[in-house]
Amino acid sequence: MRRKAVDHLLECVDIMDATGSGTLKLWFSDGLNYPGQDDLRARQDRLAEALGEVYGRLGEGQRFLLEYKLFEPAFYATDVPDWGTAYAHCLRLGPKAQVVVDTGHHAPGVNIEFIVAFLLREGKLGGFDLNSRFYADDDLMAGAADPFQLFRIMFEVVRGGGLEPEAGVAFMLDQCHNVEPKIPGQIRSVMNVQEATAKALLVDREALARAQAAGDVLGANAVLMDAYATDVRPILAGLRRRAGLDPDPMAAYARSGYAGRIVAERVGGAQAGWGA
Amino acid sequence: MRRKAVDHLLECVDIMDATGSGTLKLWFSDGLNYPGQDDLRARQDRLAEALGEVYGRLGEGQRFLLEYKLFEPAFYATDVPDWGTAYAHCLRLGPKAQVVVDTGHHAPGVNIEFIVAFLLREGKLGGFDLNSRFYADDDLMAGAADPFQLFRIMFEVVRGGGLEPEAGVAFMLDQCHNVEPKIPGQIRSVMNVQEATAKALLVDREALARAQAAGDVLGANAVLMDAYATDVRPILAGLRRRAGLDPDPMAAYARSGYAGRIVAERVGGAQAGWGA
Amino acid sequence: MRRKAVDHLLECVDIMDATGSGTLKLWFSDGLNYPGQDDLRARQDRLAEALGEVYGRLGEGQRFLLEYKLFEPAFYATDVPDWGTAYAHCLRLGPKAQVVVDTGHHAPGVNIEFIVAFLLREGKLGGFDLNSRFYADDDLMAGAADPFQLFRIMFEVVRGGGLEPEAGVAFMLDQCHNVEPKIPGQIRSVMNVQEATAKALLVDREALARAQAAGDVLGANAVLMDAYATDVRPILAGLRRRAGLDPDPMAAYARSGYAGRIVAERVGGAQAGWGA
Amino acid sequence: MRRKAVDHLLECVDIMDATGSGTLKLWFSDGLNYPGQDDLRARQDRLAEALGEVYGRLGEGQRFLLEYKLFEPAFYATDVPDWGTAYAHCLRLGPKAQVVVDTGHHAPGVNIEFIVAFLLREGKLGGFDLNSRFYADDDLMAGAADPFQLFRIMFEVVRGGGLEPEAGVAFMLDQCHNVEPKIPGQIRSVMNVQEATAKALLVDREALARAQAAGDVLGANAVLMDAYATDVRPILAGLRRRAGLDPDPMAAYARSGYAGRIVAERVGGAQAGWGA
Repeated sequence: MRRKAVDHLLECVDIMDATGSGTLKLWFSDGLNYPGQDDLRARQDRLAEALGEVYGRLGEGQRFLLEYKLFEPAFYATDVPDWGTAYAHCLRLGPKAQVVVDTGHHAPGVNIEFIVAFLLREGKLGGFDLNSRFYADDDLMAGAADPFQLFRIMFEVVRGGGLEPEAGVAFMLDQCHNVEPKIPGQIRSVMNVQEATAKALLVDREALARAQAAGDVLGANAVLMDAYATDVRPILAGLRRRAGLDPDPMAAYARSGYAGRIVAERVGGAQAGWGA
Repeated sequence: MRRKAVDHLLECVDIMDATGSGTLKLWFSDGLNYPGQDDLRARQDRLAEALGEVYGRLGEGQRFLLEYKLFEPAFYATDVPDWGTAYAHCLRLGPKAQVVVDTGHHAPGVNIEFIVAFLLREGKLGGFDLNSRFYADDDLMAGAADPFQLFRIMFEVVRGGGLEPEAGVAFMLDQCHNVEPKIPGQIRSVMNVQEATAKALLVDREALARAQAAGDVLGANAVLMDAYATDVRPILAGLRRRAGLDPDPMAAYARSGYAGRIVAERVGGAQAGWGA
Repeated sequence: MRRKAVDHLLECVDIMDATGSGTLKLWFSDGLNYPGQDDLRARQDRLAEALGEVYGRLGEGQRFLLEYKLFEPAFYATDVPDWGTAYAHCLRLGPKAQVVVDTGHHAPGVNIEFIVAFLLREGKLGGFDLNSRFYADDDLMAGAADPFQLFRIMFEVVRGGGLEPEAGVAFMLDQCHNVEPKIPGQIRSVMNVQEATAKALLVDREALARAQAAGDVLGANAVLMDAYATDVRPILAGLRRRAGLDPDPMAAYARSGYAGRIVAERVGGAQAGWGA
Repeated sequence: MRRKAVDHLLECVDIMDATGSGTLKLWFSDGLNYPGQDDLRARQDRLAEALGEVYGRLGEGQRFLLEYKLFEPAFYATDVPDWGTAYAHCLRLGPKAQVVVDTGHHAPGVNIEFIVAFLLREGKLGGFDLNSRFYADDDLMAGAADPFQLFRIMFEVVRGGGLEPEAGVAFMLDQCHNVEPKIPGQIRSVMNVQEATAKALLVDREALARAQAAGDVLGANAVLMDAYATDVRPILAGLRRRAGLDPDPMAAYARSGYAGRIVAERVGGAQAGWGA
């Protein structure tokens, strides 16, 4: 069974070769539901061995990103539950292995922007699965639950050079649109990330550094909050216009009639599902 | 100010030299209360530099243990908030730097025995600050809030060889006895750790391995639970007796009259306090 | 749509009449995924109205139990998220409406036995959905994640008279056996609840009351822990024997061959599923 | 001891009489650190009795507000741990007893604006202790940790009529300024609450109701988010100007020289402290 699983991973690299893909994202749902169900330590040995085999198969310009998740589907122990575990495996393997941060995969209260800053400092931040959550891995639209957190994350990305192409940080959405239409849900998520990024770029970094160096707690916080309080929607609308895009993506999508078209086209088709 | 702080750490190593102590435990209360208050990444640079200087000062047979803590006294970001951060710093420094696990310093839901197993596997578990908590860093008596968790932790210690003297795992209590008398509170904590350890040693490791290998979830869990359900108090009482100790430490302390004596002796003395 | 939903509830009471059932358990999965999605307050008005209609339909000797759940499937707001909300609705309706406690439906750190004690004191504890969880609504076997918590809950049940038939507390399992066989999983859960109950009944209530009245924190805690530390498996095996049952239910089930029989019988049958 | 405690509460009402105060806020730090330490249920009986005595002493136009808190200083069980407990006691007593919501006193993940909406609907929201938190009862400046949450809370206040004077909702700050200067910290908190309130008032309630009625999840969310994304600082500066106030309270305070003056005046004075 393990051979089959590793072969599946190796096949993924074959497909990367064939398609010219440079990044393989790995999230393992493996874990335990009950104490004693399996040996926590031996599982790490097996995981390290499998990851090593896949790592060895990566070619030039290829990398894999290891994702961590606190819990679910396993409810007692997850094999890669936190960034520390993912980081330790990636560090041992080498520069082609990096960590991916899913913003919904942490314990309550964990400071995600700290992890982002730390991984960027170590050259180990491979990318993001963006979404938002109030409780667990809720997979809501990015920026919907805590827009200030998304801004703080994007600020650490900016501050750590993570927006530069050479940093190689992959920005992905990983969401589950249960009650809202899927495409508008994704448009809204992208717009939320754009707004958070625009605000992060607006932070007056020199004024911030001065206030920080002076130990001016309220002044330093105010520099950050001033950028956050700014309404960046007009700036972003202008940017879109200059790029030849509609300044209001949601309205443009609604006008396009695409939603109605795909509904009409799919009448009578087979429904996709988890098992499809 | 930083120079002063690092000099203080270096002085600690002087004292280790003078006293023959082999282990320096480091917990840094540093952190931020507000986003923007300081630069998260630059703080890691400064921390790494300071730790490097102290590490360089350690002699043969000396080590330091780096402690992590999710929050408090800092309420937004802690400089060493989780085991991953402590591990990354220790790994970079070398074998004389190890991580110490305070059982009350994690986010809700974090699987502590996983961390213990992982750090032992990496040779990076330096020791424990044992206590228990229902909410935050409550510093209650070890084993008082979740005796099953303490058992699972001790089982991973046993399974990972952490009870062997050469493993060098330091077992400490770090508690705050607010409503119970201090010495009996510590006796009770020690007894709770002894009971958890005895149960961990009682686990039928062969039967467990067999059930795990067979994928027998309930069977494997049952092997662990059988040990946990055992009443080990008689075994421990017998062990104490054979060691020439009182089989009931709490009763022995009560009989000793020590509590009354120290109260009488200290009448009129100055009260110690946080600032004393 | 609301009419349809309320009619469905009324139909449930018709079925209660026809079958002689006395208890209707209500868990509403309703809620919101996004702030603003609907009006939090108007939803309570509609909920109160619907519950009132169902309450009015209940006959003599009939009641309904209202279940609360922090989150899931709704990820921002749940219409009955906590015991307070369930209690407030039930209180307004009258004695035929009571609260049901699912042990997996609370926020991290919530003291469940406090809620049990409070609801029993108010005559509003209608029953339990027993299961255990490490993170969210994990629906693991009761007593698997935190047997000490289950013991504390059962102690409050005992202390509050909740085991007496006239208290009318319904003890149910609500679990989801994903990785373990279902029937043995339920046997194990029942045994875990039996052990917790036996320990709760073993608490020396007089000694406990004396230590509590004397403000003897450690002594009072020790009385409770003494009962918890007791290995009650022999007592329970004896009880089963005296009742003409097999002292070891798991072994009896294994010997029965039932598991193999149902597998053989169902070969070729259609699989049940969430949508079935 | 209980008599003394209740007499102290009654004396508070004497002081209310003498000073013309209409509101007594009650937060009880009482609770247990260890299971078994005291009887959870009997404590509720005693609490109910004491509250009843104080309630009976309240005159016309007087009320008390009962505060709840999940934990701390008690680490196992708090006598009034959640809004449900406070609500149940207040409901039993009558209209002069209401609940006060401290925004830092909840378990992780609890939806505070739901509680606010629910209590307003029941006429039981007496007031707020505003502050913000990342982890526990951090007592940071209001709006500093999660400004979107503060906006959602203020929106439910607006929606439920809680800003109307006749609603009698008392808005208080309850913060602990550890690393920032106290008066500017409070100014910042007040400004944060003003901004959240202004945004809440900007919500287009008609458009929101329409989108909600139409089941337009994204549209309804967008109406709320549009108000939140608005930069209300210019509006608030204008309002202050029209009221004859400085449009920039922080700058005005800095210019006033008050901070320097009180430092100079207090040289040589005795430091206040927790025990002072």
